[in-house]
Amino acid sequence: LTDGRGAADQSARKRFGLWLFGARGGLATTAVLGARALARGLTEPIGLVTETAPCSALALRTLGDVVFGGHEVRSVSLREAAGEVHRLSRTIPSALIEAIHDEFDELDADVRPGTLTNAGATIERITADQLDPIAAADESLRATCDRLSADLVAFRERHDLDGVVCVLVTSTEPQLRFDQRHATLEALDRAIDADERDAVRPSLLYAYAAAEAGCPLVHFTPSNAAFAPAIREKLDRAAVPYVGSDGKTGETLVKSALAPMFRHRALKVLSWQGYNMLGDRDGAVLAADDNKRAKIESKDSLLANILGYPLHTHVGIDYVPSLDDLKTAWDFIHFEGFLGHRMTMQFTWQGADAILAAPLVLDLARLIEFAHRSGEKGPQHQLACFFKRPIDGGPHDLHMQMQALWDWVAQHAS
Amino acid sequence: LTDGRGAADQSARKRFGLWLFGARGGLATTAVLGARALARGLTEPIGLVTETAPCSALALRTLGDVVFGGHEVRSVSLREAAGEVHRLSRTIPSALIEAIHDEFDELDADVRPGTLTNAGATIERITADQLDPIAAADESLRATCDRLSADLVAFRERHDLDGVVCVLVTSTEPQLRFDQRHATLEALDRAIDADERDAVRPSLLYAYAAAEAGCPLVHFTPSNAAFAPAIREKLDRAAVPYVGSDGKTGETLVKSALAPMFRHRALKVLSWQGYNMLGDRDGAVLAADDNKRAKIESKDSLLANILGYPLHTHVGIDYVPSLDDLKTAWDFIHFEGFLGHRMTMQFTWQGADAILAAPLVLDLARLIEFAHRSGEKGPQHQLACFFKRPIDGGPHDLHMQMQALWDWVAQHAS
Amino acid sequence: LTDGRGAADQSARKRFGLWLFGARGGLATTAVLGARALARGLTEPIGLVTETAPCSALALRTLGDVVFGGHEVRSVSLREAAGEVHRLSRTIPSALIEAIHDEFDELDADVRPGTLTNAGATIERITADQLDPIAAADESLRATCDRLSADLVAFRERHDLDGVVCVLVTSTEPQLRFDQRHATLEALDRAIDADERDAVRPSLLYAYAAAEAGCPLVHFTPSNAAFAPAIREKLDRAAVPYVGSDGKTGETLVKSALAPMFRHRALKVLSWQGYNMLGDRDGAVLAADDNKRAKIESKDSLLANILGYPLHTHVGIDYVPSLDDLKTAWDFIHFEGFLGHRMTMQFTWQGADAILAAPLVLDLARLIEFAHRSGEKGPQHQLACFFKRPIDGGPHDLHMQMQALWDWVAQHAS
Amino acid sequence: LTDGRGAADQSARKRFGLWLFGARGGLATTAVLGARALARGLTEPIGLVTETAPCSALALRTLGDVVFGGHEVRSVSLREAAGEVHRLSRTIPSALIEAIHDEFDELDADVRPGTLTNAGATIERITADQLDPIAAADESLRATCDRLSADLVAFRERHDLDGVVCVLVTSTEPQLRFDQRHATLEALDRAIDADERDAVRPSLLYAYAAAEAGCPLVHFTPSNAAFAPAIREKLDRAAVPYVGSDGKTGETLVKSALAPMFRHRALKVLSWQGYNMLGDRDGAVLAADDNKRAKIESKDSLLANILGYPLHTHVGIDYVPSLDDLKTAWDFIHFEGFLGHRMTMQFTWQGADAILAAPLVLDLARLIEFAHRSGEKGPQHQLACFFKRPIDGGPHDLHMQMQALWDWVAQHAS
Repeated sequence: LTDGRGAADQSARKRFGLWLFGARGGLATTAVLGARALARGLTEPIGLVTETAPCSALALRTLGDVVFGGHEVRSVSLREAAGEVHRLSRTIPSALIEAIHDEFDELDADVRPGTLTNAGATIERITADQLDPIAAADESLRATCDRLSADLVAFRERHDLDGVVCVLVTSTEPQLRFDQRHATLEALDRAIDADERDAVRPSLLYAYAAAEAGCPLVHFTPSNAAFAPAIREKLDRAAVPYVGSDGKTGETLVKSALAPMFRHRALKVLSWQGYNMLGDRDGAVLAADDNKRAKIESKDSLLANILGYPLHTHVGIDYVPSLDDLKTAWDFIHFEGFLGHRMTMQFTWQGADAILAAPLVLDLARLIEFAHRSGEKGPQHQLACFFKRPIDGGPHDLHMQMQALWDWVAQHAS
Repeated sequence: LTDGRGAADQSARKRFGLWLFGARGGLATTAVLGARALARGLTEPIGLVTETAPCSALALRTLGDVVFGGHEVRSVSLREAAGEVHRLSRTIPSALIEAIHDEFDELDADVRPGTLTNAGATIERITADQLDPIAAADESLRATCDRLSADLVAFRERHDLDGVVCVLVTSTEPQLRFDQRHATLEALDRAIDADERDAVRPSLLYAYAAAEAGCPLVHFTPSNAAFAPAIREKLDRAAVPYVGSDGKTGETLVKSALAPMFRHRALKVLSWQGYNMLGDRDGAVLAADDNKRAKIESKDSLLANILGYPLHTHVGIDYVPSLDDLKTAWDFIHFEGFLGHRMTMQFTWQGADAILAAPLVLDLARLIEFAHRSGEKGPQHQLACFFKRPIDGGPHDLHMQMQALWDWVAQHAS
Repeated sequence: LTDGRGAADQSARKRFGLWLFGARGGLATTAVLGARALARGLTEPIGLVTETAPCSALALRTLGDVVFGGHEVRSVSLREAAGEVHRLSRTIPSALIEAIHDEFDELDADVRPGTLTNAGATIERITADQLDPIAAADESLRATCDRLSADLVAFRERHDLDGVVCVLVTSTEPQLRFDQRHATLEALDRAIDADERDAVRPSLLYAYAAAEAGCPLVHFTPSNAAFAPAIREKLDRAAVPYVGSDGKTGETLVKSALAPMFRHRALKVLSWQGYNMLGDRDGAVLAADDNKRAKIESKDSLLANILGYPLHTHVGIDYVPSLDDLKTAWDFIHFEGFLGHRMTMQFTWQGADAILAAPLVLDLARLIEFAHRSGEKGPQHQLACFFKRPIDGGPHDLHMQMQALWDWVAQHAS
Repeated sequence: LTDGRGAADQSARKRFGLWLFGARGGLATTAVLGARALARGLTEPIGLVTETAPCSALALRTLGDVVFGGHEVRSVSLREAAGEVHRLSRTIPSALIEAIHDEFDELDADVRPGTLTNAGATIERITADQLDPIAAADESLRATCDRLSADLVAFRERHDLDGVVCVLVTSTEPQLRFDQRHATLEALDRAIDADERDAVRPSLLYAYAAAEAGCPLVHFTPSNAAFAPAIREKLDRAAVPYVGSDGKTGETLVKSALAPMFRHRALKVLSWQGYNMLGDRDGAVLAADDNKRAKIESKDSLLANILGYPLHTHVGIDYVPSLDDLKTAWDFIHFEGFLGHRMTMQFTWQGADAILAAPLVLDLARLIEFAHRSGEKGPQHQLACFFKRPIDGGPHDLHMQMQALWDWVAQHAS
């Protein structure tokens, strides 16, 4: 009765909140609709790690227990967002949209205006024509922080939630160059009070608000600002679990599964070139050099980590509007074997990004909610397998990462 | 002083024999030349697992300690065999051949006539124009067994070797249909004495000879006859370590590294089609349906094992003479993700088979020699990572297999 | 006033019939729905050669002038057929089906029972559960011929059509081995009167009926029976234009565009391997060896024709149910250049077969209707560019074929 | 006796010079060795268009008639250049080098120091360690022009050649921005006299020298300076034939053969992305943005030309040192068909650039020598099929270009 599991079992009956920063983007929209469809038995739980062994042995909340809310900078309804995804990439079937459209008003009611403070020119441009007036309004940094965290608290209270987990799925921002204002929470608070907007990005403000409201945080994008040292200090003081960054869904996932093979066989990789194409809002943002840089660093760092030696590697990203969300990546691997003989491998990956990422968002929300409920706090290294840039580093080898997750699950399984 | 390691250290100073069944095929030729080039510092040890951590921590014999010998059914010198490989696939540089040609006569002196008994029409056809007269001579089964094992014993004595390890790298045979004559060693010996040639294949006779001479055996091909129950009984009685079968070098290696990724992400693989092309003698043999069947079963069984559910899968093999040893494989993977959305991955693998396999032959010889010296006997399951069809089964997931090897190494490392 | 063009202009105001043998298969269904959607301005004419220069300069009937009818062996409505295509391959948008569903009853009214006489075990198996009772009924060959041609005549009269063009899009049949019964029309008629069912296939009976009713014929499948010498004699006697066979839509189309490049550069193609995967009813039929053979011969013959020398070539076809109509082909080309250096090219083609073929069906119907109206008869060699196996042979080089079409268009353009 | 053909036949007995600007680069080295090997019957004429019908019907000089010379900025012998090619990309067999090494001294004797004037930082950097002292010496522009053309005249006289054809195969330069100094020959001569080095590039000076010496010119690289208006004026005044630019050897060749297929089928190409990788000196030069830009413009312009409408297209080029001359390109084509359905095609091209280009250099030299002998002058549009950026434009469709060549051949064939 007094052990963690008993407590977990009991509280499992209560609902918890999943708050999405970027609530009406393609990924969040797919996650919300998919979760509702699953909760109502309208689709199969394909792609959900938490629905398969060994994770399914944990006392996780069900998807039916989730109440969705979020921040969004565009004035767009769930119906509009879902329709756009369907029209552009056909990943959400129209039959599914119709089947759950009776919930749309309720779901839209929990979306609040986000922030675009210092988001950079590209993000401002692609959101300009649908901009929410409140998100666009002039507001001091401190007022924004207060508004965002108040939204979280109000959401928790309104629905009498056991807890609220935050997941950051906003557009990739230009890298924020850290200076002494990001070194400590005290310095950051001073900068916020002084309304020094160049010191922040939206992701930083969202993460600040999550910590302020005592919510666990999953950072699913490559934007570095969200894990500035000062923010990590704030999350640590809030004693909440947090993890990130940049969900590992496609080409990088393949790399992390495949590169170990070359090491296991003592084959010497000479060059590994990756060429990525994507369309939609995500692609338009990454077409901008500033925003692309953050992404590429995230994608490019793992090979030397896995192989154990430096090699020629390059990750190209191009914006190909006709593809919409149907990401296509080509990788070319040039390697040397016995007697110095050179050989090649190449692969093409054609995957819908939101389809691959949405179940991970739900998995991570369930896992960090469980971790929080189990008393965990700070960086959740056991979840590294979900990220291109795992917090605090560690091995990028997918199989080592899975082992770490399995070990943790074994310790926590009911 | 009395522990295994001390004994291993001491005997490490002595040389051991590596006897290749199929001594002048492309793979054996590449292995022999490569080993000599490595021993003389003329090339880098790329592709050799035993030269990298953690295996390098074992008290393995060096490649310079190896004395090569073997059985071969064709009358072909090492110079001719090396020249053919160079001319057809350019994998062995001509400079390398020249650099070690002074050893060729000595190396050729230890190659003895093999056997073609009941090898099947295809193998007989492709060896017909170079057939060794002794290998071709009419001889009773018992006489062949005696001759083959006598060759092994004579080799060991002639060079005063600490031991002889056998590696089977002959052409893929048609599957042997086992009956009661293969059920026990006693029954098999009766069939041999009765000269029932339909009961044997060359690989069976070679494995019999290895056991008879007390040699550890690495079975690197898919031919099933070598591990008939009666043969395993003989190997077990000889108390030697043995392992196999069918070296995992190319497309199947990639599959075993990549398929776990789909399981780790709960993505549902609908279809996995593989299409393999190869030329040279190996390709000509596999172009024959009987011989191909053995190979395909070996390549095709692992996906359901790794993924945990049945799926549509097919492995095609075609003979493309112009490719010679430069194997090219294309794999197409059709999989389903969240909301039932279907996506694809494809890869092309272009690798020289002998280049990929030769270091594994050397690795396996060193590891099984070490296992023998350490008192191991019977099937060596820790070496499953090297095989498409690991003896006695087990997981096909490359990473699980590597973990098993690492665990064994950790137990035996100096 | 008396020239051909004037006559064509006048008659252009009248409607003509497009009779589809195989009227509720995926291809015919896509063609019918697409034509109606185009006629009503609901979609763009992408993929229609007759809507672009130079063919658009001909006095062709518009798609709005077409009245659709056909023979079908399964009892399936247009709504069911369209729904199946949408569900399996998503190529026909559900919005499009809804937009024209008011026409479905009328369109279904002109579909009559076809024939399965000697269609082979595979086609019988895959149609068994939806078989139309009349198509399945026991009937003499002569009665079938009379029934089929009577359907065509009745259709023409019922709609007061200017003419009826037939297009054969039934499943690929096993090759029919021609004997003296197929050498002359007289012999064939004797065999039909004697009810010798092994002498016919459905495609032969359909072509016979088309000729009997005086209708031009487009033979869009590889089934050889439709162009037996006796049938060609009957078509010639009917003085109708006819053309075929086997629509060139995907991998073979690419080959016919690409192979000339190697000839133009004097590069020597050593091997050209093609590996095709498809699902759906078409794939299931081709999975049967008998039916596959017809297809492969059709696909495989063109390379030597284009390159001018024999080469190693192979076309593999595998049934991959999960792909449905989304055909995927991989081609690997191994070629030799200056100094004997060997290089490679490979391509992957991912196309929906019915989407690629349907506009060709409409193009061919319009072009042969125009040819008929212009007084042409016999084999229409200028349409070779549309076929894998052009009637009477000729160059397979796509560009030479296009030039022949353009020359013909220039002669006939208004 | 007095017709052109008779004259051609007679003079065909005399030898002609082939002067290579960039004489010891990989391409020129491959062309020279290959031509000598062909002349001595040591290799087959694979890749030589002039050795196949219909070009072989022209009264062309044989390759044995060619005397080689050239300008080069690096101090490197033919043996060293050939050895480098063999070592890095294995395209020139060592047996071939040995077979003709007796000619090397003689061939080296006709190579003279070139020029690096205003070649740009990248070319200067990669040639720095082997720089020829004369090529590197400070010299006025006028002196350089005089020196280069004097070399050509001296070569012609020394060998008593019937004529000298120049082929430009130097590294790709940064684009030269044309101003009024390039508008007329008079203005350019003034700039040269005033030693305005920013007005020139090496390619401009080489082309100037060719015109000065009355030599036909083949411009095989993308460097725009060689065809500045003032240079074309000088070539026209010299009444020599000339042609260019940028040899069409790999990915672009495939595009020009394949893109017409989409037009022929009225398929709408939405996006065509190309990603090119290459190593060696050529790749290092193109890794520099300035130099790359010239190349990309050359590669990227043809699709809209062939398809007839604007589309999303991108050509990426990356430097991958391990590939050396083994260029690898991946192209991804996203296209729309009937009912707006989207499909994809992709191809991978793996070709050795010098192997593909060298026979074209020899073909072009023979063809322009023949044109010159036949009295042709000015731009040779019939040779457009050999170039990525045909002089004065015209269709990029490979098949239309071939037709133009065949028409010209038919007019000039013996």
